[in-house]
Amino acid sequence: MSNSRLQSISNTLKESGLDALALNPSPSLLYATGLHFHLMERPVVALFAADGRIALVLPELEMAKLSNLSYEVEAFAFNEDPATWTDVFRKAVNFLGLDGKKIGVEPLAMRIIEYRYLQAAAPQATFPDATEAIASLRIRKDENEIASMRRAAEIAQNALEATLPMIKVGVSEKEISSELVMQLLKHGSESPFPFQPIVSGGPNSANPHASPSERKFQEGDLLVIDWGANCNDYVSDITRTFAIGEIDAEYRKIHEIVQQANAAGRAAAKPGLPASVVDDAARKVIDDAGYGEYFRHRTGHGIGMEGHEAPYMRAGNERILEVGMAFTVEPGIYLLGRNGVRVEDDMVITKDGAESLSTLPREIRVLE
Amino acid sequence: MSNSRLQSISNTLKESGLDALALNPSPSLLYATGLHFHLMERPVVALFAADGRIALVLPELEMAKLSNLSYEVEAFAFNEDPATWTDVFRKAVNFLGLDGKKIGVEPLAMRIIEYRYLQAAAPQATFPDATEAIASLRIRKDENEIASMRRAAEIAQNALEATLPMIKVGVSEKEISSELVMQLLKHGSESPFPFQPIVSGGPNSANPHASPSERKFQEGDLLVIDWGANCNDYVSDITRTFAIGEIDAEYRKIHEIVQQANAAGRAAAKPGLPASVVDDAARKVIDDAGYGEYFRHRTGHGIGMEGHEAPYMRAGNERILEVGMAFTVEPGIYLLGRNGVRVEDDMVITKDGAESLSTLPREIRVLE
Repeated sequence: MSNSRLQSISNTLKESGLDALALNPSPSLLYATGLHFHLMERPVVALFAADGRIALVLPELEMAKLSNLSYEVEAFAFNEDPATWTDVFRKAVNFLGLDGKKIGVEPLAMRIIEYRYLQAAAPQATFPDATEAIASLRIRKDENEIASMRRAAEIAQNALEATLPMIKVGVSEKEISSELVMQLLKHGSESPFPFQPIVSGGPNSANPHASPSERKFQEGDLLVIDWGANCNDYVSDITRTFAIGEIDAEYRKIHEIVQQANAAGRAAAKPGLPASVVDDAARKVIDDAGYGEYFRHRTGHGIGMEGHEAPYMRAGNERILEVGMAFTVEPGIYLLGRNGVRVEDDMVITKDGAESLSTLPREIRVLE
Repeated sequence: MSNSRLQSISNTLKESGLDALALNPSPSLLYATGLHFHLMERPVVALFAADGRIALVLPELEMAKLSNLSYEVEAFAFNEDPATWTDVFRKAVNFLGLDGKKIGVEPLAMRIIEYRYLQAAAPQATFPDATEAIASLRIRKDENEIASMRRAAEIAQNALEATLPMIKVGVSEKEISSELVMQLLKHGSESPFPFQPIVSGGPNSANPHASPSERKFQEGDLLVIDWGANCNDYVSDITRTFAIGEIDAEYRKIHEIVQQANAAGRAAAKPGLPASVVDDAARKVIDDAGYGEYFRHRTGHGIGMEGHEAPYMRAGNERILEVGMAFTVEPGIYLLGRNGVRVEDDMVITKDGAESLSTLPREIRVLE
């Protein structure tokens, strides 16, 4: 698998006018090489030349990871003395003849530490943003990738169902978040998770990015749970909103609106249309209901090896949807200081529309 | 707490000749502000001016995090259209008058995306490496920080003890790794963990950074478990090595050597001495026993809010140890393709030596 991906990288670099691609530990590095490295104080960088050769700069103690590779890599290993690292980077750059060339980078993944070592090793090189070139490889998921994502959605759904019986008045967000993490592992999620589950009740549910707190659920709360699993390095990212006992009529109403907006966004997704149509369709439902100012984020983001990746479902995004593109549809209404609602599904573009990999009921469920 | 830390940042910037500090979502940002942000495709940057003023560039949907702060922050929020972000960064930079100034950065944490927005907003500014300045604030832990680290070690140890009964011939590394993660949560670890547990048996134990695999334990394996917990955003990082049934005499011998090296490293740590003495003491034991070439990494690293931070226990590191500095002592011997051993403790420098926060027996334990 990696060999055909390496061939695609080489082709994409040539088409993009890039001489090479530099990746630090990131999902793209894993996608390209199958190698798991993590971010640390020691800089790891893989250099992919457009001619297909690969140089890898890494700490000596990571060399064992290179046994049994199905492709050729020239390794440049450094020891524990940072004073020697620039020289090792220079050897790798010179091996591929990259000084003065265009070396694409991923600004969302590469840190200043790797960037400065590269700049020191190739002072005449330029480092254009290669995000689009890499996204073009990763953005259309193949059958195996979709199967992993489908399984990641199943695992997440099973874990949530196993967690729901614990939720009641007096239990805290953190308790439910911990239980959900345990259930994700029990049901087969790998580590790491795409993100730590969001479990936010009452006023916290009106904060789209709340961290689970010590707050205990109260009668009348809305409860937003936003969680995901990892299967074979592919992730899911789902949100459902629940009611703790009897809730305010307006909260029922905003849930109904958000659920309709979610359905409209999912129905609008079709191959050949721009990503913006998904945002437009979902937003229109909320705007028309008079809650437009309370839907303060885009409708969704791409999903795959990362929880957030291209394509982004936002107003004005002209990227054309193609078969195999995967993304979330997650409209919300957030009444600051009061309560909030979000309903999120993981979609994949099919020949004649889009399929939801997440299948949990979207209606508000009353707990207790 | 954050207010005195903000005062310290201001003082440190002045002493270091820096006009400001720029932090993206990272442990240092959490240390300075108490705010939990995560890395994402939207760039979040806090700018701390030496005069004490703070500007924060962030997405509109994260604004709720700024309610109830005990200090003043000027927020510069951007919407979902990336085309507008440079302008928002420029407003923040101009608010603090930072163009043309020295803005310190953390190369290990900041990504090219944040860096390039800062460069575009302050084209005449320079961005010196402020790693040392920030480390000087975080490197000496106070009583509260040490209490959290002690608890993080306890949680990790209790979780391991609860996991050990599951380990036997035929069980896989991944199964034990998942069980250990669940036990960490059950015993009170918060998320995220400092790192995913390493559970590596047989030949995998000779790879210091192995990822848990499907390999099943076999009679005669050494088993290295390297794991940690999170308590109040402070972490532990411990390693113990086990025997699966009857093991080769040489494996017993290398465990004995590593255990002695660990003891020598711990005993050498004292206030007023350079960090290198810890590495020297541990390495000498392994060198003298004839296994020097199989101990292929430094003896340890600092620990606190990050699993790896200053001070580093490596040859030649002249940083003087001071009361409150915390770090690991983790010598190892790795017989590539065969088996490996590591024994790791979390230490904190005291008035007259160093205390181990981790207290599990260090002797090799035979499982089964």
